[in-house]
Amino acid sequence: MGIAAARRMHEPLDDRAFDVLFREARTYNAWLDKPVEDGQLRQLYDLMKWAPTSANSNPVRLVFIRTERARQRLLPALAAGNIQKVLTAPVTAIIAYDVKFFEKMPKLFPHNPRMRDMYANAPELVEVTARRNSSLQGAYFILAARSLGLDCGPLSGFDNAKVDDEFFGAGRECEGCDQEFFPEGHVKSNFLCNVGYGDPASLLPRLPRLEFEEACTLL
Amino acid sequence: MGIAAARRMHEPLDDRAFDVLFREARTYNAWLDKPVEDGQLRQLYDLMKWAPTSANSNPVRLVFIRTERARQRLLPALAAGNIQKVLTAPVTAIIAYDVKFFEKMPKLFPHNPRMRDMYANAPELVEVTARRNSSLQGAYFILAARSLGLDCGPLSGFDNAKVDDEFFGAGRECEGCDQEFFPEGHVKSNFLCNVGYGDPASLLPRLPRLEFEEACTLL
Repeated sequence: MGIAAARRMHEPLDDRAFDVLFREARTYNAWLDKPVEDGQLRQLYDLMKWAPTSANSNPVRLVFIRTERARQRLLPALAAGNIQKVLTAPVTAIIAYDVKFFEKMPKLFPHNPRMRDMYANAPELVEVTARRNSSLQGAYFILAARSLGLDCGPLSGFDNAKVDDEFFGAGRECEGCDQEFFPEGHVKSNFLCNVGYGDPASLLPRLPRLEFEEACTLL
Repeated sequence: MGIAAARRMHEPLDDRAFDVLFREARTYNAWLDKPVEDGQLRQLYDLMKWAPTSANSNPVRLVFIRTERARQRLLPALAAGNIQKVLTAPVTAIIAYDVKFFEKMPKLFPHNPRMRDMYANAPELVEVTARRNSSLQGAYFILAARSLGLDCGPLSGFDNAKVDDEFFGAGRECEGCDQEFFPEGHVKSNFLCNVGYGDPASLLPRLPRLEFEEACTLL
C-alpha cells in the first residue's frame, strides 16, 4: 500500500456507516418477508474472511441453513425461547470451528511450516485458539452482514452437543458419510446467528450499555 | 425505528467502507509517528459498546496502555516476538473480561432480575459466556477502530496469567489496592491489541484465505 492509499484508510468512515454497523443496528427476532440470496452469503464470507485471526488460522466454519428440511434438524437443539426465532428467519448460520484448523496452515501460513506442527502438538492451545478466533470471526460475520444491509439475530441458547452430533458427526466414525459437511467429527458449534431483514415493528426500546468508566481504564 | 429508517439500514455500505473494514485493512506491527488521543479511545468504545452480546452481558473490560510506565509492566508477559510491536505502538489495549459481569445485569438487563442469579449460580456458563462474548467484543473493537481510521495489531502471544497478576490482582486479596483498576481479582485477559496508524512501508504481501467452499456449506 502506498502513502496516499494509507492516508485514505486513515480517514474515518461517515455517520451512516457508524449507524449501520453500531449505533442504530439492532438484534432482531422477527423478520420481513424478504429473502436472503446465496450470493449475499458469498459476499458476506468474502468480506469477513479478510479480518484478522491468530497466525492467519481462520478456524471458523459456517453452515448456512436455508431450507425447511435443514431447519428441522436444528430445532431439537434449541432452547424453547429460540425456536420461533429460527423458524421465521430466512437464514440461520451455525458459527462453528474446526479443531483441526491447523491442517490448512500450509496454505494459510506458508512461510512457516512449523506452525502446523506447533498446533498439532498442543491440543489445549488448539481449543483456546479455535474458540477465541471463531468468536472473533463470528463478530466479523455480524458486522459484515450489517455492512451489506442485512440484520442479525445471534443466539447462544442451544445445546452445542446436539448440534455437533446432528451436523458435524461428533464422535462418529465417518466411513460412508462423506456426503455430509465436515464428516470427520472435528468441527464444533460456537453460536448461531439468524440473518435476514429485521422487522422494525418488532423492536423494543434499546437496553443500556456500560459507561466508559465502568468498562475501561486509561493507564 | 420507522419503515423509512429501516429501509436506509438495509442499503449496503459502499466500497470504501468494505475496504476500510475488511478488504484493504491489514494487521500492523510498525506504526507511523502519529499519536492516538484519549478522545479517540472514547469514541471507539462508544461505537463498539452497541454491538450485541449474550443477554446484553457486555463482559469485556478494556485497559488502554498509553504511558511508558504502564507499557513496561506489560513487557515481561510478552512472547519475545511481540515485545518490539508493543514498545512501538501508540496504544496497547488489554482486551479482558469480568467473570463477575453478572453483577452489572440489574443495569444491563433490568426487565429480568433472575438473569443475574442464573449466571451467579453457573460458574462454567459464566466462563464460556465471558470468553465468547469478550472475544466478540474484541472483534467489534478492531472493526470500530478501523471505522475511525485507526489500524490494529491484535496479539495473543503472551502469558495471560502474568498479565492477570500484574494488572488485575489475580488471586490477591485487595484491601488497600483500590486505586488500581478492577482490584478484586475477577478480571482476566483475553488478548492484546495494538492501536495506531500503521506504517504501510512495513507491510508484507497478504496471506491467503480459505475459499468459500473450504469454510462454508449451504444446507
